[in-house]
Amino acid sequence: MSDTKAPWITYRPELKVLDCTIRDGGLINNHQFTDEVVRAVYDTCIACGVDYMEIGYKNSEKSFPKAEFGAWRHCDEDDINRLLGDHDSETTGLKLAAMADAGKCDWKHQIAPADQSKLDMIRVAFYAHQVSEAVEMINHAHSLGYETMANLMAVSNITDCEIDTVLDNIKDTPAGTMVIVDSFGHLYREQIDELYRKYSTAMEGTGKEIGIHAHNNQQLAFANTIEAIILGSNRADATMAGLGRGAGNCPMELLLGFLRNPKFHLRPVLQLLQDHIHPLRETVTWGPLIPYNITGQLNLHPRNAMQYIDSDDRDDYVKFFDEITRD
Amino acid sequence: MSDTKAPWITYRPELKVLDCTIRDGGLINNHQFTDEVVRAVYDTCIACGVDYMEIGYKNSEKSFPKAEFGAWRHCDEDDINRLLGDHDSETTGLKLAAMADAGKCDWKHQIAPADQSKLDMIRVAFYAHQVSEAVEMINHAHSLGYETMANLMAVSNITDCEIDTVLDNIKDTPAGTMVIVDSFGHLYREQIDELYRKYSTAMEGTGKEIGIHAHNNQQLAFANTIEAIILGSNRADATMAGLGRGAGNCPMELLLGFLRNPKFHLRPVLQLLQDHIHPLRETVTWGPLIPYNITGQLNLHPRNAMQYIDSDDRDDYVKFFDEITRD
Repeated sequence: MSDTKAPWITYRPELKVLDCTIRDGGLINNHQFTDEVVRAVYDTCIACGVDYMEIGYKNSEKSFPKAEFGAWRHCDEDDINRLLGDHDSETTGLKLAAMADAGKCDWKHQIAPADQSKLDMIRVAFYAHQVSEAVEMINHAHSLGYETMANLMAVSNITDCEIDTVLDNIKDTPAGTMVIVDSFGHLYREQIDELYRKYSTAMEGTGKEIGIHAHNNQQLAFANTIEAIILGSNRADATMAGLGRGAGNCPMELLLGFLRNPKFHLRPVLQLLQDHIHPLRETVTWGPLIPYNITGQLNLHPRNAMQYIDSDDRDDYVKFFDEITRD
Repeated sequence: MSDTKAPWITYRPELKVLDCTIRDGGLINNHQFTDEVVRAVYDTCIACGVDYMEIGYKNSEKSFPKAEFGAWRHCDEDDINRLLGDHDSETTGLKLAAMADAGKCDWKHQIAPADQSKLDMIRVAFYAHQVSEAVEMINHAHSLGYETMANLMAVSNITDCEIDTVLDNIKDTPAGTMVIVDSFGHLYREQIDELYRKYSTAMEGTGKEIGIHAHNNQQLAFANTIEAIILGSNRADATMAGLGRGAGNCPMELLLGFLRNPKFHLRPVLQLLQDHIHPLRETVTWGPLIPYNITGQLNLHPRNAMQYIDSDDRDDYVKFFDEITRD
């Protein structure tokens, strides 16, 4: 008999999965999803055993005009009630969440008290220099009755000292989770390890969980997600078919195949993919394409790659590489 | 200053990369590559700094008739000389390799003495129950003057005890490298760690290197490759655009982006992809498609998924899932 354990065939019941298909996927289509698709993702989240569904952004109409952006960029209570008015987190086991961006959310007015909303959680997303506003936002959402999470974005291009200062500020907030966010899909396994150690050490004794939100520029979103889980992360983000900005996210169909909690089911996800998600490829493009491999390797925002993939030069990888490495 | 090291920005000079684009990729087109494509891969291997190019199989004409299979299933010296007659491993820094499958190679007659061949290395691939023949093949190829590698295939569905017996038999051969081979694309990070520990412990004191050959069924080929490298593997396999059977292999363009040895160059790989590899998608299909995700998760040979993807049902993932999980 082997003297080692096989943790990959067991599970931690406290590990929870968050689906952010509509929220992150909306960054490639200005959240112009049909109600049918959003509802199908919601129904699938329940059927497959996911714990949270992030249905969109609570961002301001001033930054994102309604003429241009769909309902899930703002998550007005009217829209939530129209589509998910029958939602009950108790009976479904699914909590609804929305993300609020520091600097882009009119949070003092835009977030209703939790007892008047179908939402259970507000995730506050922010860059390091916005941490002071993020702390105010977390405190505000908490005072309204929401569970909260803190998403420090683009962690791969700030200094250790800046990260430490953010963690120090978040530590004393009521945020239930501090999320490792690899916005550019740049991080390798050893860097995830470093960040996990840093985040978990900083949050020690607070009861906060460590989350993971990975992007797939280098085909590492799933690998980095399970790496964080192996180390101890109990909150993991994924999206159906990896739908998300640029290279996309950790694919739900891979994550659920890894998790051994029998409450998770793969089959409903496959049904959703063939019925609703893969047909989106007729109008939008995502996944670890070569230009995204390159921006990931170079630790760059994917925006140049997104523009390139929309251009007629999309298959000329060398030209993209030359342009982006010239300076 | 941080008290930790950042190994991801440095490198080990002894780490060598093997390109097996034509060898593994030939499993999806019966090695019916044009000379132009094979030569372009060869030229790219030199330009991008790769250490070995595995140009095909040394397998028998009886098992693989020449009417059906292209030249690189057999790697006759005449074909090698026709296309790569000008090859010189000294001046190019590139060694040529061929794979010989136990049970499918007429190895006593099919392998020329090394001093009469452009080949530098013979890789012997075998299933656990073929280890006795593999040992004979390695000894034979070594006696002919070749560097040798041992590839134990499908390691994810044999017992620890069988693996130990294979390692014990390979230990005393002249094979320079023992390769961890995840044929089904099934292994997670913790399992790679277990295998690395097992293989490296068994080979301790022999001077043998540990290699890694990963498949991409769960989008883990690159992640598992860098995991093995981080642990100490000094031989890593990759293919251009991940070309290879079923879900394909670790993509060279990702691996070279990770390696920090300045001898490696990404740009020639990008040129090859756009000129020669991506155009192959008009006739063949590879990559981590949903049916391959499923066979990888289930630890199954990809053959059922390959058949399914060639059928009219290819987009009906639920039907495939139901069929393959029914028994």
